[in-house]
Amino acid sequence: MKLDMERAAGTQRDAVLLLSGGLDSATVLALMRRDGYRVHALSVSYGQRHGVELASAARVAQSLGAASHLVMHVDMDAIGGSALTDSRIAVPEDAGDMPGIPVTYVPARNTIFLSLALSYAEKLGARDLFVGVNSVDYSGYPDCRPAFIAAFEKVANLGTCAVDDGTHFTVHAPLQALGKGDIIKAGSALGVDYSMTVSCYQADAKGRACGHCDACRLRRDGFREAGVPDPTRYV
Amino acid sequence: MKLDMERAAGTQRDAVLLLSGGLDSATVLALMRRDGYRVHALSVSYGQRHGVELASAARVAQSLGAASHLVMHVDMDAIGGSALTDSRIAVPEDAGDMPGIPVTYVPARNTIFLSLALSYAEKLGARDLFVGVNSVDYSGYPDCRPAFIAAFEKVANLGTCAVDDGTHFTVHAPLQALGKGDIIKAGSALGVDYSMTVSCYQADAKGRACGHCDACRLRRDGFREAGVPDPTRYV
Repeated sequence: MKLDMERAAGTQRDAVLLLSGGLDSATVLALMRRDGYRVHALSVSYGQRHGVELASAARVAQSLGAASHLVMHVDMDAIGGSALTDSRIAVPEDAGDMPGIPVTYVPARNTIFLSLALSYAEKLGARDLFVGVNSVDYSGYPDCRPAFIAAFEKVANLGTCAVDDGTHFTVHAPLQALGKGDIIKAGSALGVDYSMTVSCYQADAKGRACGHCDACRLRRDGFREAGVPDPTRYV
Repeated sequence: MKLDMERAAGTQRDAVLLLSGGLDSATVLALMRRDGYRVHALSVSYGQRHGVELASAARVAQSLGAASHLVMHVDMDAIGGSALTDSRIAVPEDAGDMPGIPVTYVPARNTIFLSLALSYAEKLGARDLFVGVNSVDYSGYPDCRPAFIAAFEKVANLGTCAVDDGTHFTVHAPLQALGKGDIIKAGSALGVDYSMTVSCYQADAKGRACGHCDACRLRRDGFREAGVPDPTRYV
């Protein structure tokens, strides 16, 4: 399995991880701990329909050994424009084969999230940002693609103290080229308990999944592909 | 005076402006109206010490003809690390000649603000973002420099629907090469009433300025340079 993260030699290195409470970022946290990072997890409360994922994020952060977990609030529902932040737009079922950018795309979400992670990292003195994006299964989201991640890394290095102090920010997307099955295999090998994670776009207050949305479909297929029992609780 | 904005031909073109309540972004709003844009102003409540600037922003938006004004909330004080968002760090007086990045720098603030503006623009279908940064007087802030603005524009075009639909986001910084005096001259010629604006980093609840911080010093020098009476109310 190819990973783009550096091995930390000797002392722990601080890094900021965008932690959603879903399957992907939980896996990244396990990989970071394996590689010796001191992980500062950052979750964002942005008016998402599936707010229960923040409780999952807290469980994942504690269980997998994050050094800290910060939840920031941004009222992206004031903007709306996505099924995830506007309750008037329905989450589609079985939309996997529909062309174009899915209605669950939240305008510029990852740009906002990475900006917050960058601010937090600059404050902490960390120079490594980690994000669980992967473009194999989610190629419909423009802000999950490698060219976007590379462009953001350039912004990070031009728009902060790094431009003057000779340091360098790196945006790590270690899952970038992996499919859901490979991600689940990697995490399972590191002992990740995926029953703590919530992927469903419209999970209920108890964290139970709908079983029909894009996120549920990809997750279920991933467990099948990995040959790992699916611990998801469905409504 | 050199401006990097396009002249809107015929019908009004939607654009998003980051409006702070200060002198620079008020001037940009006047320039945008002159050039025929339909302006959607976006202000950010981010835990800033000088929260009174949001009331100024509302007055400026209404007085200078913004089509809409949205205030978004981001709890950047949860991160801290700046004299503007952490009340335990004092705003320095007469710090103009100190080397390095000022303590009033808020980590990655403009990256966060531009990300929010990008999200809002994508939702509205606008492709023009305007920001009042200028690097002549504020060269201490890395996220006010032209290379940063250009890098963010690239992120905007790679991380949104623009990557697929053939449209293009432009980040306009029409004040980029201007000093405070030129900015005030330009705005005054367009009838901007600068008494509505607040620049001071620690303005009191009535919007009165301290007269000593960097922002106050640059503003006062600007009015002197422009030969325009300074309408600022000091404590």
